[in-house]
Amino acid sequence: MGDVDAAGLTPAQARALFRTGTITPTSGYSRGYAQANLLSLPKEDAFDFLLFAQRNPKPCPLLGVLEPGQVTSPLLEGGDIRTDIPSYRLFRDGELVDEAPDATAWWRGDMVSFLIGCSFTFESALLDNGVPVAHITQGRNVPMYRTTIDTVPAGRFAGPLVVSMRPVPADRVADAVRITSRYPAVHGAPVHVGNPAAIGIHDLSTPDFGESVAVAEGEIPVFWACGVTPQAVVMSSRPALAISHSPGHMLVTDARDLEYQVP
Amino acid sequence: MGDVDAAGLTPAQARALFRTGTITPTSGYSRGYAQANLLSLPKEDAFDFLLFAQRNPKPCPLLGVLEPGQVTSPLLEGGDIRTDIPSYRLFRDGELVDEAPDATAWWRGDMVSFLIGCSFTFESALLDNGVPVAHITQGRNVPMYRTTIDTVPAGRFAGPLVVSMRPVPADRVADAVRITSRYPAVHGAPVHVGNPAAIGIHDLSTPDFGESVAVAEGEIPVFWACGVTPQAVVMSSRPALAISHSPGHMLVTDARDLEYQVP
Repeated sequence: MGDVDAAGLTPAQARALFRTGTITPTSGYSRGYAQANLLSLPKEDAFDFLLFAQRNPKPCPLLGVLEPGQVTSPLLEGGDIRTDIPSYRLFRDGELVDEAPDATAWWRGDMVSFLIGCSFTFESALLDNGVPVAHITQGRNVPMYRTTIDTVPAGRFAGPLVVSMRPVPADRVADAVRITSRYPAVHGAPVHVGNPAAIGIHDLSTPDFGESVAVAEGEIPVFWACGVTPQAVVMSSRPALAISHSPGHMLVTDARDLEYQVP
Repeated sequence: MGDVDAAGLTPAQARALFRTGTITPTSGYSRGYAQANLLSLPKEDAFDFLLFAQRNPKPCPLLGVLEPGQVTSPLLEGGDIRTDIPSYRLFRDGELVDEAPDATAWWRGDMVSFLIGCSFTFESALLDNGVPVAHITQGRNVPMYRTTIDTVPAGRFAGPLVVSMRPVPADRVADAVRITSRYPAVHGAPVHVGNPAAIGIHDLSTPDFGESVAVAEGEIPVFWACGVTPQAVVMSSRPALAISHSPGHMLVTDARDLEYQVP
């Protein structure tokens, strides 16, 4: 697929490509459209996770929820949530046990699917406003870290907040806060600015997920709540069954990034 | 209680007053603190309603949820959700069957309580910004109307959107939109401006809830999603048991209005 203009594909075209087996990170696909994290759980755990998301809107901003038995939604018009993501992860009792481009064989009839906002949306807004995004410039996945900040528990779900880090030139930190705070549905304003040790991060060069990026002289590390938090919470809380996307391999939705801008 | 300085009471003092039997509308109590609508449902209906709220954030912005068996929360520190509201309503199979200042006798051990944002918060912001609020000036309850706009269904819950109406001078309509859009947790921006017939309201002088207010020459009727919507949805969807506050008789919370301002 080397010649595909990924940015120019409609979301439906991108999903069709992934449905037929293309496995690729989705950064850069379908420019202008929002991408989403996935967590699917059996009905018996769905109330607790829905409440968890309500109490933790920064890491778990819900763009949509597919009710038990539903496998499509207006966010993926004509699509199928079990096949339209490039890669899925299977968790049993909180352990990652499999990874595959099709989740149909793992599915149960009563699965509830949570679609959670993704920082790709606010990264586009940062770039459009001339704020550099180092991991994109450096051609890497964003670095992500478990923190000592606890999420707010709900029912059986609890665990650490996971954050992503972007180094921002000191004279653009205020702009980065202002711009991202206009996107509360995709993690919103930073949770922390400038002091990684205060949230339990002692070495920026060894992220827990993703890849490290260089922080240049004069840049401040800025931390945003991250959509990988639900996977960390699944690992801590050990529900019998959970299905997620593979990090970086997101659902490309039919919603435009700009729909999530406020006010 | 005629000499009580209602505006100067702390939220805890206001709740103590209502717990011991004072029955009064709460408009004007504990200035600067957010008030909330209540809907309590048995656990069996809680997932569907939580999903309903997620899908309908304008009429049902959740400030907090008390899990099955919980009767207090950080939003009512040291309080009891069954007693701390001035007046409660009991619905059985969608019918309003009782109204009382204490809901304890109606309670079940598995009730889940939803605390939903209230427009009193943005009315304070409108007044602070010099935008007149007619029903306050006229000493009346805000007029509310069922519309022909459907809410987004979730599980067993569906029904009409209820809106509140405030007449705004034509030269302040843009300000009213801008100011209230900064409070998405308390209904946010208007859902409609200027044409009541388009949303099924044929006579502004006969509201379905609350009291009518005069619309002066040069004023435009502006419509916001309303926290009475959950009660209209209960009446349409007929769950076996539901407990709400009585309209205008709200929970006074420990959260400050300003906590809900974005960005």
